[in-house]
Amino acid sequence: MAPPEDLPQMTYRFLGRSGLQVSAISLGGWLTYGGYTENEKTFECMKAAFDSGVNFFDCAEVYSGGKSEVVMGQAIKKYGWKRNDLVISTKLYWGTAFGDNPVNNKGLSRKHIIEGMAASLKRLDLDYVDVIYAHRPDRQTPMEETVRAFNHLINTGQALYWGTSMWDADEIAQAWRYADKLGLIGPIVEQPQYNMLNREKVELEFAKLYREVGTGLTVFSPLAQGLLSGKYKNGIPEDSRFAQQKVEFIQGWWKRNGKEKFDEMIAQINQLEPIAADLGITQSALALAWVLKNPNVSSAIIGASSAEQIYENVKAVAAVEKLTPEILEKIDGILNNKPPAVVERY
Amino acid sequence: MAPPEDLPQMTYRFLGRSGLQVSAISLGGWLTYGGYTENEKTFECMKAAFDSGVNFFDCAEVYSGGKSEVVMGQAIKKYGWKRNDLVISTKLYWGTAFGDNPVNNKGLSRKHIIEGMAASLKRLDLDYVDVIYAHRPDRQTPMEETVRAFNHLINTGQALYWGTSMWDADEIAQAWRYADKLGLIGPIVEQPQYNMLNREKVELEFAKLYREVGTGLTVFSPLAQGLLSGKYKNGIPEDSRFAQQKVEFIQGWWKRNGKEKFDEMIAQINQLEPIAADLGITQSALALAWVLKNPNVSSAIIGASSAEQIYENVKAVAAVEKLTPEILEKIDGILNNKPPAVVERY
Amino acid sequence: MAPPEDLPQMTYRFLGRSGLQVSAISLGGWLTYGGYTENEKTFECMKAAFDSGVNFFDCAEVYSGGKSEVVMGQAIKKYGWKRNDLVISTKLYWGTAFGDNPVNNKGLSRKHIIEGMAASLKRLDLDYVDVIYAHRPDRQTPMEETVRAFNHLINTGQALYWGTSMWDADEIAQAWRYADKLGLIGPIVEQPQYNMLNREKVELEFAKLYREVGTGLTVFSPLAQGLLSGKYKNGIPEDSRFAQQKVEFIQGWWKRNGKEKFDEMIAQINQLEPIAADLGITQSALALAWVLKNPNVSSAIIGASSAEQIYENVKAVAAVEKLTPEILEKIDGILNNKPPAVVERY
Amino acid sequence: MAPPEDLPQMTYRFLGRSGLQVSAISLGGWLTYGGYTENEKTFECMKAAFDSGVNFFDCAEVYSGGKSEVVMGQAIKKYGWKRNDLVISTKLYWGTAFGDNPVNNKGLSRKHIIEGMAASLKRLDLDYVDVIYAHRPDRQTPMEETVRAFNHLINTGQALYWGTSMWDADEIAQAWRYADKLGLIGPIVEQPQYNMLNREKVELEFAKLYREVGTGLTVFSPLAQGLLSGKYKNGIPEDSRFAQQKVEFIQGWWKRNGKEKFDEMIAQINQLEPIAADLGITQSALALAWVLKNPNVSSAIIGASSAEQIYENVKAVAAVEKLTPEILEKIDGILNNKPPAVVERY
Repeated sequence: MAPPEDLPQMTYRFLGRSGLQVSAISLGGWLTYGGYTENEKTFECMKAAFDSGVNFFDCAEVYSGGKSEVVMGQAIKKYGWKRNDLVISTKLYWGTAFGDNPVNNKGLSRKHIIEGMAASLKRLDLDYVDVIYAHRPDRQTPMEETVRAFNHLINTGQALYWGTSMWDADEIAQAWRYADKLGLIGPIVEQPQYNMLNREKVELEFAKLYREVGTGLTVFSPLAQGLLSGKYKNGIPEDSRFAQQKVEFIQGWWKRNGKEKFDEMIAQINQLEPIAADLGITQSALALAWVLKNPNVSSAIIGASSAEQIYENVKAVAAVEKLTPEILEKIDGILNNKPPAVVERY
Repeated sequence: MAPPEDLPQMTYRFLGRSGLQVSAISLGGWLTYGGYTENEKTFECMKAAFDSGVNFFDCAEVYSGGKSEVVMGQAIKKYGWKRNDLVISTKLYWGTAFGDNPVNNKGLSRKHIIEGMAASLKRLDLDYVDVIYAHRPDRQTPMEETVRAFNHLINTGQALYWGTSMWDADEIAQAWRYADKLGLIGPIVEQPQYNMLNREKVELEFAKLYREVGTGLTVFSPLAQGLLSGKYKNGIPEDSRFAQQKVEFIQGWWKRNGKEKFDEMIAQINQLEPIAADLGITQSALALAWVLKNPNVSSAIIGASSAEQIYENVKAVAAVEKLTPEILEKIDGILNNKPPAVVERY
Repeated sequence: MAPPEDLPQMTYRFLGRSGLQVSAISLGGWLTYGGYTENEKTFECMKAAFDSGVNFFDCAEVYSGGKSEVVMGQAIKKYGWKRNDLVISTKLYWGTAFGDNPVNNKGLSRKHIIEGMAASLKRLDLDYVDVIYAHRPDRQTPMEETVRAFNHLINTGQALYWGTSMWDADEIAQAWRYADKLGLIGPIVEQPQYNMLNREKVELEFAKLYREVGTGLTVFSPLAQGLLSGKYKNGIPEDSRFAQQKVEFIQGWWKRNGKEKFDEMIAQINQLEPIAADLGITQSALALAWVLKNPNVSSAIIGASSAEQIYENVKAVAAVEKLTPEILEKIDGILNNKPPAVVERY
Repeated sequence: MAPPEDLPQMTYRFLGRSGLQVSAISLGGWLTYGGYTENEKTFECMKAAFDSGVNFFDCAEVYSGGKSEVVMGQAIKKYGWKRNDLVISTKLYWGTAFGDNPVNNKGLSRKHIIEGMAASLKRLDLDYVDVIYAHRPDRQTPMEETVRAFNHLINTGQALYWGTSMWDADEIAQAWRYADKLGLIGPIVEQPQYNMLNREKVELEFAKLYREVGTGLTVFSPLAQGLLSGKYKNGIPEDSRFAQQKVEFIQGWWKRNGKEKFDEMIAQINQLEPIAADLGITQSALALAWVLKNPNVSSAIIGASSAEQIYENVKAVAAVEKLTPEILEKIDGILNNKPPAVVERY
């Protein structure tokens, strides 16, 4: 399926304080590729993304027990894309997760980082990735060991840059502290969750990192597992054919916060509908554009099971400039979760 | 021979201040593998250990003139174990020891470290070891040369970590001094002898290292060459079929300390018998559990010539929690060799 | 075509504060090789240069979309020159420029430096270049990333030295600042334009760099696109068969400065004719010798489409010593563009 | 020819402040191997040396235009010696010297060090040398470039250590200054001329280096081109079949110092004859033992064209202990060239 004619021009952003450029929208393999999406569909999605100007494909050793890397690697070969036109990332921490012995096949020890990278590159059938992430912080392995091991991957040409995912701000600062002390390369990017409903980490906790070490962000769940698309405005249907795993996320939310809070949240999201309508865009596009409006976001990672979904999401790129200060203020009023500004001086 | 049903769950510990996890019980090739144990028995032992959750196998270039590395490498291939599920260590210092020209084939020069590592990996038929040890201190080679050479092995991917064996505390501190000065990786682990009869090095001399540089310990002879198993409670039988080399160790002890002292020691060990009986464990299990009770011990290295011995020893893991402060105090009273506490402040 | 009998001995100069020696005249592939010069002519030119003592051949990934590297590499193979007798340089920044996606295939990110180097070496069919240049400054990529990436090329044996082209003095100083801070290798050479008409950058702006970091210069356009050869003394002929691209340069000049200024410049250049005649050399030789008279110039890069042109230019080497202080002063009087001396103390 | 029965046990010394051990007598390829000694004789000499306990073989890229490396490499293969039992050194500076273009094939630039090392290893047919020397100081290449390039050889596994030859003390100190500043490895050894007639460099100029940086010495011409063997006690025979090149050395001496001075020197040397006779050793053995008596000398490099010569020289090892303080004082009285002691404090 060819890209629609009204597809906007993709925009590219530097990945934090680095010279690497990534498309504002990137495609991730979480849950979908190698998982509940069949391989033919995966190929179709990756092609639609590439044809839309997406150059950044995100994976992890743990996604679908390693199968996500395999199928994404196959797509690259299948379409004969040039390696230098792509930005490929994967993540180490969980091992291949399903069935493997967790001892030494998990975490950020030098052993798992080196063994995990070799295994990921073999699955991807690539010589190197552009960005290798620490998928979680490992609070039992000394930070110095982890920083050294990621630099080993860079020095041996297996990765060009490294980053973190789901780390706390002080952990990122510690990693930079060791990198600086030892003359090594620090993590250029963090991958947190970021969307209209989850703002504190990106807008408050990380605020000083952007200035001090130039952390870039590739954010996941920009649509909050679909909640912000508006498709649950009448609640979650009982017999939804919707992917079981996503429902599980929402059920987890229920368990933690209660159904009542959930319904309040849905009501709040529904108030965003008229704003999207006024701008002539879908609620998804509004949510995605809102994420991209944050200049610290280098790329918003979307998941997709069809080319249509990808084209739909890419349209959000054109909506970014529509988000005027007035509209952003109106959205803040509805969301009522804007973190306080970090006071710099007293 | 399959593991017995009552085999306890293996526990894993971090190897000092590193992210590498080793089984509390590890299997060493000293004297046995490639030596007086035939290869089929070696394979059986390694399989029994692996099936018991042992992930850490210890070797040295000098063990049986290099044959220990060969047979342990064969076992890994034979059973198709995944490399990432194993922690393999070997040690450099003595060369292959039997018949080789000692000039430059011994010690911790850059030459022997680099040439010895290549030879060990070839014998093991592996691409890398997890831990490479300096088997002894080399007081003639400058420490800086040794620290640089072990880092060379790590940088070239032939080893993931390095450690020391039979070094003095101040030598370990000197190695760290050069590592720090040059931004290199220091030794994460020391391998000393440690058991109820030999406590001073581990409990007194190394006390400050644990805090300052996070030295982990893999200890050998946890049963003091079998003395602590209680099997010599009536003395050493004249025509013992017991491995000749072990007897030689004990004879050496006699020469240094005299038969009278030896008999005193046996009497002392015999007093531990009722404590083991009260806990419902063997004397060996008591001795091994006592070693593992020390939180600075990452792993106790056992030697074994049969699967039964391995299962027997692994049972000690479950006995560790039985060693209450009261029981430990009672044992200290019998051993009468508890080193003084290191006074931290005056 | 064999070198003429009166060809002077080539001279060699150190490339800035390095131990690498380059011929005073070097041959560049810009516009010509792989471009408007046919390959047989390129081979002939390179042979004439080599036979004249030229050891330095300059290229760039962008020259003729990569074809310049291909044909220059073919010449090296064709004539069986020994690699150690050659100094080969290429430049990274623009990608292969014609038709390639500019995202990540341009600039001085770690990604493009590593991917671009591999692609250049493949086109050149060489294992390494002697000098790899940053073809332009990249003001969006952090300088530290760029300095580290060029050092990665040196550490992995793909290049022996690195340099810059068309950088400002403060950018070169910044690169050295990061190199010094991190214990890395700084850029030894800058490649600017330098000729009688363009003096400020080399004679004023860079003045302190020569002393502080020892920057060497390989200069391009020593004849100012042919203007200084005197062949346009009567203006640019309307139907010139002269290479279209060079005319475009001059037309660009017109657009920026106006035809009147251009005619003034031609009149000024014409005043150099009698000086050349007095010395018994061509106007080209005078202009080239004048560039080489500057001791900070390591090599003047010429372009040529025939062996004759090369021999003609090489003759300038013998003219350098003819440029006495008196003659240089006379030339300064005509050019009227001598930058002020950098005052060192007040 | 098998070693004589009275051949003394070879002794080994550490190469300066390093962990590398070299035989007190080493065999060099200068002038002889690949040169005026035929290859079969070279093999015989190397075997005799090896059988005598010599483990250190010294070469240089320039010796016999590279042929010395070739034939010494062939001997190693021919006799199947184990690489770890040998200490092989070669030297870079002069290129292969005979007929090669000197531009960039000479000196201590990064280019020549890297290209020269590759060429030497190819000629030697080895993966690495133990020691790579800078054969002369290069006063035109920045010292930092040279220090970095030799470390590059070590980091890439092509050499284990590096040293200098014919450098001044302050140049060695400068090399260490850059090594220290950059955290790199400094030169562990210097190769100067040292014999009874040339003492100043080793005994005076280098005196502080031994203490400060631990410089070891491998010395050449311990017999002063044969002068100290006593075989010219009646002057140089006119029609000597003695190797032409050695005569040229002596002729050079004549030119610089005059025949009269030469005859004085011969007379002085003749006074050593009775001392040797008293000790029951040859004059050569006395001269060689005298060199080895200096504890800063790690090895004395001899040249030899026959197995007999080697066995003869090796005997000097046993003579070292015969040189009592009294005898040394008597020798000093004859030589009358003992440098003043370096005054340490005032």
